[in-house]
Amino acid sequence: MRTYLECIPCFFSQAIESGRLITGDEIVHKELIDDLAKLIPEFSLNSTPPEMAYHISKIVKARLGDRDLYKQIKEKSNKMALELYPRLKDKVEKSNDRLLMAVEIAIAGNVIDYGAKNSLDIDKEIKKLFQEGFYDEGRTIFDYEDFQKDLRDAKQVLYLGDNAGEIVFDRVLIEEFFKEKEVIYVVREKPIINDVVMKDAHDCGIDKIAKVISSGVESPGTILKYCSKDFIDIFNDAELIISKGQGNYEALSSARKGIYFLMRAKCPVIARHVGAAVGDIVLKKS
Amino acid sequence: MRTYLECIPCFFSQAIESGRLITGDEIVHKELIDDLAKLIPEFSLNSTPPEMAYHISKIVKARLGDRDLYKQIKEKSNKMALELYPRLKDKVEKSNDRLLMAVEIAIAGNVIDYGAKNSLDIDKEIKKLFQEGFYDEGRTIFDYEDFQKDLRDAKQVLYLGDNAGEIVFDRVLIEEFFKEKEVIYVVREKPIINDVVMKDAHDCGIDKIAKVISSGVESPGTILKYCSKDFIDIFNDAELIISKGQGNYEALSSARKGIYFLMRAKCPVIARHVGAAVGDIVLKKS
Repeated sequence: MRTYLECIPCFFSQAIESGRLITGDEIVHKELIDDLAKLIPEFSLNSTPPEMAYHISKIVKARLGDRDLYKQIKEKSNKMALELYPRLKDKVEKSNDRLLMAVEIAIAGNVIDYGAKNSLDIDKEIKKLFQEGFYDEGRTIFDYEDFQKDLRDAKQVLYLGDNAGEIVFDRVLIEEFFKEKEVIYVVREKPIINDVVMKDAHDCGIDKIAKVISSGVESPGTILKYCSKDFIDIFNDAELIISKGQGNYEALSSARKGIYFLMRAKCPVIARHVGAAVGDIVLKKS
Repeated sequence: MRTYLECIPCFFSQAIESGRLITGDEIVHKELIDDLAKLIPEFSLNSTPPEMAYHISKIVKARLGDRDLYKQIKEKSNKMALELYPRLKDKVEKSNDRLLMAVEIAIAGNVIDYGAKNSLDIDKEIKKLFQEGFYDEGRTIFDYEDFQKDLRDAKQVLYLGDNAGEIVFDRVLIEEFFKEKEVIYVVREKPIINDVVMKDAHDCGIDKIAKVISSGVESPGTILKYCSKDFIDIFNDAELIISKGQGNYEALSSARKGIYFLMRAKCPVIARHVGAAVGDIVLKKS
């Protein structure tokens, strides 16, 4: 997915948020904004939004050092999600359609996204999930029957992870098929926003049910031109790909067939692109 | 009020919206964004937001010519508001406190702001006003008793207009006191967004109940350093000033005593600055 005009105000909000995680000094925040502003005329709308997120991350690192800004937030998200884990499993156990419930849970995990939401929203969303389930959420694009069939037929699944915390929700879905299939779980190469890296996969037990690899990218989305050759080979050969979250959708929406995009449509630009309404849960086959 | 970091994404949204009013050509929209981006490093957070709005307007004019972008929108707003006028007057006639109702109506008119809202919202807001009134709206900052007293004592009122359409709502308030007081109604010097200019004052009958003057500014807020000397003299000597809308508040929040700011707090930055919640109706004495 290319960048739309409406993404540009959002880039500035991301830069402000990143700066605020490190310092309360507004002069520094303005410097980050100025750095980003200088980059805008060079940035083509034909690039994908995660590419700009990557540049923003580089701007922040150049001014404030190479640190894992969201480290504490990620640890907290993982901890919170692991505490929820038994209740998530219980929901699957008690459901009539285990796979559907696990898919819904994996999408629910996608509310844990500090790129698009704040922590208050996340608490609220998760409470809502347990109280009401997803029955009221729109699902304009929900290719569940295809997914069910393609997953049944696949011997191998490539699962592109998204955020910390959310990774525990991914685990619930993967546990529905890891015994019968080869599963590869993909994390980012280096910390970017609250996206999953190798440590999160280990902390949340993904390494027990899948082979965990890095895509080689440091952007919050699997931008193929920045991925390692090893990953590209695996990606091209993959039978079925589960891609989590908006960032991976932005990077891969027109990459190849056989990708199932699982996400919550959180912003109007993505919702329009995918053909859903803001707030919808999306299961889209490419 | 100075510019806050959160205003910067909003500046870009304004530039996009202005561009879209003239052309559907996204290449041009991106050029406007690039022009604005180049300006950001030069722009101090100590400036007021309407100053940037003025610069955005200059950028748009430089690329696309000096035209009254919101001409049709303004004419439509005035027409719609004039159609509502008899019902607004009826509301005042039937109320227990005529002045309070007229103040509420004048603030209600402030929803007609294309800088901050779209037309769909405006229709909805106006319907809501007629169905329910303002009884549910927050009014954390509502210095009505002071206003009532100061207005009673004042021989002269300087009224700083804001938007087309809204000007008819202003008329309803001014009609409550124009017979006993000298009223001066202030418009912008040149078209900017949907702000009132001399034509709107004539089209909406303000010239029958007030002396209409221009502040000399072309920004969507009465930025004193850009005002004409004649206006500054009138402003400094004014007994009581009624200032409508966010733009005038941003420009004048710390300008002098004796200003009553009437507005709907539409954005989080202004709401925080004024000490209200987003959506509150505000009547604040400086």
